[in-house]
Amino acid sequence: MFILINLKTYVCDPIEIAKAANSISNELDVRIAVAPQVIHLKEVVETGVETWAQHMDKEGEKVRTGTVTSAGLSEAGVRGSLLNHSEHRLLLAEIDESIKEASEAKLETVVCANNPSQIAAATSLDPTFVAVEPPELIGSGIPVSKAAPDIVRDAVESAGKVNPKIPVLCGAGISNGEDVSAAIELGAEGILLASGIAKSKNPQKSIEDLLSGI
Amino acid sequence: MFILINLKTYVCDPIEIAKAANSISNELDVRIAVAPQVIHLKEVVETGVETWAQHMDKEGEKVRTGTVTSAGLSEAGVRGSLLNHSEHRLLLAEIDESIKEASEAKLETVVCANNPSQIAAATSLDPTFVAVEPPELIGSGIPVSKAAPDIVRDAVESAGKVNPKIPVLCGAGISNGEDVSAAIELGAEGILLASGIAKSKNPQKSIEDLLSGI
Amino acid sequence: MFILINLKTYVCDPIEIAKAANSISNELDVRIAVAPQVIHLKEVVETGVETWAQHMDKEGEKVRTGTVTSAGLSEAGVRGSLLNHSEHRLLLAEIDESIKEASEAKLETVVCANNPSQIAAATSLDPTFVAVEPPELIGSGIPVSKAAPDIVRDAVESAGKVNPKIPVLCGAGISNGEDVSAAIELGAEGILLASGIAKSKNPQKSIEDLLSGI
Amino acid sequence: MFILINLKTYVCDPIEIAKAANSISNELDVRIAVAPQVIHLKEVVETGVETWAQHMDKEGEKVRTGTVTSAGLSEAGVRGSLLNHSEHRLLLAEIDESIKEASEAKLETVVCANNPSQIAAATSLDPTFVAVEPPELIGSGIPVSKAAPDIVRDAVESAGKVNPKIPVLCGAGISNGEDVSAAIELGAEGILLASGIAKSKNPQKSIEDLLSGI
Repeated sequence: MFILINLKTYVCDPIEIAKAANSISNELDVRIAVAPQVIHLKEVVETGVETWAQHMDKEGEKVRTGTVTSAGLSEAGVRGSLLNHSEHRLLLAEIDESIKEASEAKLETVVCANNPSQIAAATSLDPTFVAVEPPELIGSGIPVSKAAPDIVRDAVESAGKVNPKIPVLCGAGISNGEDVSAAIELGAEGILLASGIAKSKNPQKSIEDLLSGI
Repeated sequence: MFILINLKTYVCDPIEIAKAANSISNELDVRIAVAPQVIHLKEVVETGVETWAQHMDKEGEKVRTGTVTSAGLSEAGVRGSLLNHSEHRLLLAEIDESIKEASEAKLETVVCANNPSQIAAATSLDPTFVAVEPPELIGSGIPVSKAAPDIVRDAVESAGKVNPKIPVLCGAGISNGEDVSAAIELGAEGILLASGIAKSKNPQKSIEDLLSGI
Repeated sequence: MFILINLKTYVCDPIEIAKAANSISNELDVRIAVAPQVIHLKEVVETGVETWAQHMDKEGEKVRTGTVTSAGLSEAGVRGSLLNHSEHRLLLAEIDESIKEASEAKLETVVCANNPSQIAAATSLDPTFVAVEPPELIGSGIPVSKAAPDIVRDAVESAGKVNPKIPVLCGAGISNGEDVSAAIELGAEGILLASGIAKSKNPQKSIEDLLSGI
Repeated sequence: MFILINLKTYVCDPIEIAKAANSISNELDVRIAVAPQVIHLKEVVETGVETWAQHMDKEGEKVRTGTVTSAGLSEAGVRGSLLNHSEHRLLLAEIDESIKEASEAKLETVVCANNPSQIAAATSLDPTFVAVEPPELIGSGIPVSKAAPDIVRDAVESAGKVNPKIPVLCGAGISNGEDVSAAIELGAEGILLASGIAKSKNPQKSIEDLLSGI
């Protein structure tokens, strides 16, 4: 089970959330990671929590300006990066090249996709995880595991046909333990969530509530 | 066997090429299509040759300005469209949505990709064809079937694992019958080519030469 | 006075609109142009009406696939191209390079922009015209000349400070003669409009109605 | 005089460079800022040196994933951001909106552009500074102030006509004091440089050398 908390550009306290996630992760022995804005990555790494980037740019062979590199993430102790989040979509070729660059830098990757056929495509590119998130449910508070269970089930099946070793995360609208247990029943091996924690007045309690579903 | 001639933005006579392709196609009973610039699409359709677009935009739900729509192509008698050519790369989600829009408009699609894993990804999205074109060989005159036979062979295998009904075209550097027969031996069921015909002083002869390899 | 009718991707009869625009243009001696989808450009040119493209790609030095080139437009008898429409926004550098390529190919350009400071920026790049279109009013049926007269007045002033020889067109929500005369009073030397004609059941009558405002 | 050192994605020690820049800035009373990769921004701020971002994303009204926000930069003590670097080009409308968002967050901006007419356009959008950098000279080691003095002189003149209060920085190929003094003679009020410092074995000495030209 892998819980990845995407803080997006929400106004929130990434350190408070990181500390809460870290202590619960240690206590319950569940893998929980936090993906803050890149400007907060180093501080979040220092809390001890598993830390992910929300996006990583393909470096290619040229020096560039204003991009987030695999080398920079790796050196900072970041564990992996989301790629192709529906709020940061990438070219097919960029996803492919970014996964390869991440892998060379010993970074894990979660490639997001909207539906089962895109999940199969993403799985073909050999990331560490894929995450299915129907864009219309992101930030909606309506859990994909209830609103569109077939999409989750079909995504798990699609990914499994391509490569059964790549786990599928379930995203979009997940906010409590009930949603999490529904996702697990549908075959998801992890959860990608954002507003449910980032906008919570009590992140510690919200994360505990999530984990009650495992 | 499917030969798709991409005229790109080359300065050439699309009508002369279309007529040559059409007469050879009829004579030898081989499927040959021409993809001119969009401004020439209607004239090329009128020659009777099978006509393809070089690119099609996803329409989505909003009216747009300056895009090429599936409705426009379909109405004009165009048969299909290239998508994600390495000179016109698309977001993963755009490829998916464009294939669906094309299919609804009864248009075929060829999705281009750089390497076997991208070919598997493209095949997952259920286009009519996929085409493998290593970008470094495009326009090089060095045939992929000789320079990188493993890429073609692996692309055919990758696509076959995902969906054996979707034929793989071989592109990049193909210019004569020998290249074509090499591609066929590697498992390709068609050829995507450009400069070999578009820059030829005698397109009729160049197309005939290509077909000598079948 | 210059009336530029952008047909966008609307389902409409471009030839009927072109013929109506052409006959009224000749009759009233007013400059009226039609910008159809690129697939219809050649047919629209043949009606005799002044014909514009909705978008033109920067060619650069490389051959490309699926783009609309200045050479292609020029050869087809097209008079000019919209650039940076709010439904087809461009990089600052692309606008600059496209204006230069258009100019070398003897094509005119209308660069669209959202507000007075962008209009000043666009004017600095030396296009033939600039067009101010607040995005929130596009397709709204609410004429910019009424909803936001200050934007039009300020755009005319901004452009004038940079280069008083470059006329400002007024776009967004224009549909009748009253809107046109309001735009002229605010300093516009032309009109860019779309749905008011493209969605009209009687384009001839709608164009005549527009011109009653001059 | 303003010296802005862009560390791009170069492998270098941003803290060493920041400390050197800070001590020389204090000693000589010259404004010097360092723009590290975003992951290093907070550490660089802590050295006391004036710190800039290499890029900032327009936030708009929606929450986003994997972007660099004006709020995040401002809260971290960053002073400003480069926008539209030739390695990170932006839409005209994005530049406009980003300058406004930066200004609301009390951040300064340097908008990069390739040539005098783009400089005039950038100046119209009211950034704090503009920087002229012919792309072909970036990273070349050939100083723009020698290779293309007219571009610098014309850029200063272009910007001055639009708004004489916005200073012009000179970039591309600057690496020593002689280049800097040539740029000042051409009317530049600052320098944007990168490889000359970021790839230097002795950044302290390289910065001192630069300042010998003032």
